[in-house]
Amino acid sequence: MDVLVPWPDLDRTHGAWPEGVRVHVWDGTKDEGEPSKDVLDRVGLWAMPYAAPDAVRLLPELPALRAVQSLSAGVEKLEARLPSGVALHNGRGLHDASTAELALGLILAAQREIPHWAEEQRAGNWDPHFTRSLAGSRVAVIGYGSIGSALEARLLACEAEVVRVARRARPEEDVHAVSELTGLLHGIDIAVLVLPENEGTVGMFDAEHLAALPDDALVVNVGRGRTLDTTALLAEVKAGRLRAALDVTDPEPLPADHPLRTAPGVLITPHVAGGSATFRPRAERLIVEQVRRWAAGQELLNPFPGP
Amino acid sequence: MDVLVPWPDLDRTHGAWPEGVRVHVWDGTKDEGEPSKDVLDRVGLWAMPYAAPDAVRLLPELPALRAVQSLSAGVEKLEARLPSGVALHNGRGLHDASTAELALGLILAAQREIPHWAEEQRAGNWDPHFTRSLAGSRVAVIGYGSIGSALEARLLACEAEVVRVARRARPEEDVHAVSELTGLLHGIDIAVLVLPENEGTVGMFDAEHLAALPDDALVVNVGRGRTLDTTALLAEVKAGRLRAALDVTDPEPLPADHPLRTAPGVLITPHVAGGSATFRPRAERLIVEQVRRWAAGQELLNPFPGP
Ligand SMILES: NC(=O)c1ccc[n+]([C@@H]2O[C@H](COP(=O)([O-])OP(=O)(O)OC[C@H]3O[C@@H](n4cnc5c(N)ncnc54)[C@H](OP(=O)(O)O)[C@@H]3O)[C@@H](O)[C@H]2O)c1
Ligand SMILES: NC(=O)c1ccc[n+]([C@@H]2O[C@H](COP(=O)([O-])OP(=O)(O)OC[C@H]3O[C@@H](n4cnc5c(N)ncnc54)[C@H](OP(=O)(O)O)[C@@H]3O)[C@@H](O)[C@H]2O)c1
Repeated sequence: MDVLVPWPDLDRTHGAWPEGVRVHVWDGTKDEGEPSKDVLDRVGLWAMPYAAPDAVRLLPELPALRAVQSLSAGVEKLEARLPSGVALHNGRGLHDASTAELALGLILAAQREIPHWAEEQRAGNWDPHFTRSLAGSRVAVIGYGSIGSALEARLLACEAEVVRVARRARPEEDVHAVSELTGLLHGIDIAVLVLPENEGTVGMFDAEHLAALPDDALVVNVGRGRTLDTTALLAEVKAGRLRAALDVTDPEPLPADHPLRTAPGVLITPHVAGGSATFRPRAERLIVEQVRRWAAGQELLNPFPGP
Repeated sequence: MDVLVPWPDLDRTHGAWPEGVRVHVWDGTKDEGEPSKDVLDRVGLWAMPYAAPDAVRLLPELPALRAVQSLSAGVEKLEARLPSGVALHNGRGLHDASTAELALGLILAAQREIPHWAEEQRAGNWDPHFTRSLAGSRVAVIGYGSIGSALEARLLACEAEVVRVARRARPEEDVHAVSELTGLLHGIDIAVLVLPENEGTVGMFDAEHLAALPDDALVVNVGRGRTLDTTALLAEVKAGRLRAALDVTDPEPLPADHPLRTAPGVLITPHVAGGSATFRPRAERLIVEQVRRWAAGQELLNPFPGP
């Protein structure tokens, strides 16, 4: 039984590999050579390297492949390239803390004007003024799933109010349906998108939604760039009516001369929400557990799409 | 009964003033003229304007003054200038949410490199890399008081561990004494100072404490600038061994050419932790309550120093 994993020495931290499993390592970069043809011929389970989009080129070279473990939560691109007969498992949960944390960091940076103060620091100025706050604000979490609920816990601790929105209403949990969204936005100070990219979400948050937000509201996106209408957002921020903090954009990478980069009140990070120190130990534990299940002939965790 | 308050129309939001109270307004700026001599002669309770250091010049002109309500939590400078026979009341609690929130914002900005990404945004780059995180970190809250415990609630929601430090140990609450601090610092990723300025705290966090922190640790100060040894901190950050995020500095304002401004891994905000939107309604409610108590002959809240 051959498995391919992205990091060496997982057995040292997490305990011995199950008997009968041969573990090979490839981190997805060019620095570390690809596994030999001999190994590729035998790999049945592949835990893919994270944030290494080129790694998919190996897929056609794995005739024995039966299951792929992605370390991403959003697997729409990978799904499209998967050979038939190969089961897909995603990284649901691995990025919750990291992504919710960056969303919170973006919100606080925007509300408390941290990028402005960092500029003042360098410019030699000391010219304090009152700012907005997160405490006391009403935040819509649009895509109240795994990451959204991790974000909610952080927002509540910051004394913000949270409005939950998902595909379908779940009244017993106070979750609103996305179909009611426009009406909900009137009272919202901060709208956070945590949506996956799928048929229903591409272009979903559009000019009408943006127009429903009150003046000075903040739009945050840590889900997928294409779920937000960039042209409509640009018009609102250029007019100074709304602000934005975006970890994902459309297109991505964002071109060097894209007007979002210089629009007032816009803060951009280059799709780094999922990738922080807290992700690695969680990802390692998932890989080790999946290999254990694989060797024992049990069902793997996190099938995509879900049951 | 004459009282002087910093904002107009508090009775509109918070209900009518008590009978027999004459309310005068002065916001501490030069724009709004000072109250007439006639009014100054009669003011018994003064709720001072916030973040208006010049306002103290009025103190000698208030012969009937019996109580001062400051909207700051740190009143060491005001205390020194108070005429005898005047009771001092501070703004304890008013800034908890706002100050804890900025402390969290500084921590997240530093761990997740938000100022770096903001520069990359302008520079036209899209070059993501893994960063540190707050989740999974160990944070020492040094000055586990009113603001410190508000910060703790936020840190716990962010999946960090918290080590509590105050003047005296309170084992039943897991609070460590500041005398044990050096030993505690070895395992700390982030050290947050939330100390008032007093005899015991000036220069308290010194070269020895900094040396006890592991490489790459983050030092945060949202209390008072003089509680941290700036020279010792500068040596550590210049060497690239520690990082810092400071809302308060020594001296303050920080001179335009001060080396802290350009040292690597240092983020500075100009004493803006307490001053955000969430402070105003809390401050208004305190003032209105104090005037009510004053008129009813009851004891005022927040005597300083405490009982
Ligand atoms: N920026 C980054 O670095 C980063 C990192 C990790 C993940 N992500 C992105 O974040 C996304 C969400 O991750 P997650 O783990 O929280 O996923 P999740 O648990 O599956 O939650 C997704 C949420 O989106 C809602 N949703 C899905 N399709 C929708 C539609 N067509 N219309 C309206 N709502 C819809 C779901 O509603 P129901 O509950 O009603 O189904 C659910 O609330 C991922 O798919 C990924 O693209 C980004
Ligand atoms: N940056 C800003 O904009 C801003 C805004 C608001 C306040 N502040 C500053 O933050 C300070 C703290 O506010 P707070 O409301 O949290 O005060 P607090 O509730 O009185 O808490 C102060 C904490 O500091 C500890 N402490 C006091 N003197 C000490 C000493 N000599 N040695 C060691 N520890 C000592 C106390 O320990 P014990 O519990 O053992 O007494 C307590 O844990 C204020 O005094 C103010 O200077 C800054």
